[in-house]
Amino acid sequence: MKDLPTYQALVDSFSKLPGVGAKSAQRMAYSVLEMEEEDALEFSKAIYDAKSKIHKCPRCGLYAEGELCDVCSDETRDHKTCVVISMAKDAAPFEKMGYRGVFHVLGGSLSPVKGIGAGDLSIDPLIERVEKEGLEEVILATNPTLEGETTALFIAKLLEGKVRVSRLGYGLPMGASLEYADALTLQKALEGRKNL
Amino acid sequence: MKDLPTYQALVDSFSKLPGVGAKSAQRMAYSVLEMEEEDALEFSKAIYDAKSKIHKCPRCGLYAEGELCDVCSDETRDHKTCVVISMAKDAAPFEKMGYRGVFHVLGGSLSPVKGIGAGDLSIDPLIERVEKEGLEEVILATNPTLEGETTALFIAKLLEGKVRVSRLGYGLPMGASLEYADALTLQKALEGRKNL
Repeated sequence: MKDLPTYQALVDSFSKLPGVGAKSAQRMAYSVLEMEEEDALEFSKAIYDAKSKIHKCPRCGLYAEGELCDVCSDETRDHKTCVVISMAKDAAPFEKMGYRGVFHVLGGSLSPVKGIGAGDLSIDPLIERVEKEGLEEVILATNPTLEGETTALFIAKLLEGKVRVSRLGYGLPMGASLEYADALTLQKALEGRKNL
Repeated sequence: MKDLPTYQALVDSFSKLPGVGAKSAQRMAYSVLEMEEEDALEFSKAIYDAKSKIHKCPRCGLYAEGELCDVCSDETRDHKTCVVISMAKDAAPFEKMGYRGVFHVLGGSLSPVKGIGAGDLSIDPLIERVEKEGLEEVILATNPTLEGETTALFIAKLLEGKVRVSRLGYGLPMGASLEYADALTLQKALEGRKNL
């Protein structure tokens, strides 16, 4: 079966997915061969459709099928509070917890090592939104990593005096065990302690 | 993003793959959105092509792109020795260890529980091949499970007196899946095959 070029092409495509190794890719490709014709064609079409129908929301950068994304076009949401995230997928936990503001997707984090500078991220459009949409608060929710930190500080400086800028709080994750907390997290948790 | 029907359709398709849970399916669908347009279209096409170009070899049941599969159309192989397997994927470990005979795919195992009877498997065509192709040995390589055992004994009885019938040696641990057999174990099993 390894000699079938069509099969090999399918294995190669599956290998490009995150967390899919050579063996898994083969199992998946094989399962496509064993699938009902209808399911396989639906699968092929689903990928094609996703790529041709879904685009980035021109306002916030989340994925959208309509002109604007579901968040930007929802008038019941608070359009004055904006959570800034690195990638579109980072919006999912906010949606899950019931966040009702809007988002802005940067498209990555600043990284001198990877050669990602301010011009590569959606930072200018964010500043434009602050002014044009009259945002009242920008909550920086980049990842708590060196790159995410740097990006947050960089944007905070640019927005200084223009809008209230905040950063997600650091500390122990809920449900975590103190025993396994790393030193840096614990230090942040101590710094962010609150009076009871 | 959960509200995008096109995205949801893609997640559903990924969920149908073996070993892919809800969370993995979402990660995979998301990665398709983040993919280069070209890679995604190639992926979509690979699935379509696999389903439209690859079919079962009319002689042995392995997957093929040409009229016959690569094994059946290879004249340098020993066409008098035939390994009988349940599923096409079970041929992979044989190919890996350098087996040079041919195959016959049953398409499953006898299973009263699942309602799979002799008529549901490619057993009659196997008997026809024994006579028409003048096979000299049929090596029953169904899985070393209860169902595989039953299937092997059933076929051995049908072929009694018509051809030399053997069963893979018990180098294979009971309850294992042939798909994951390592080459050495498989070689031992081949060497230790017994006449039935």
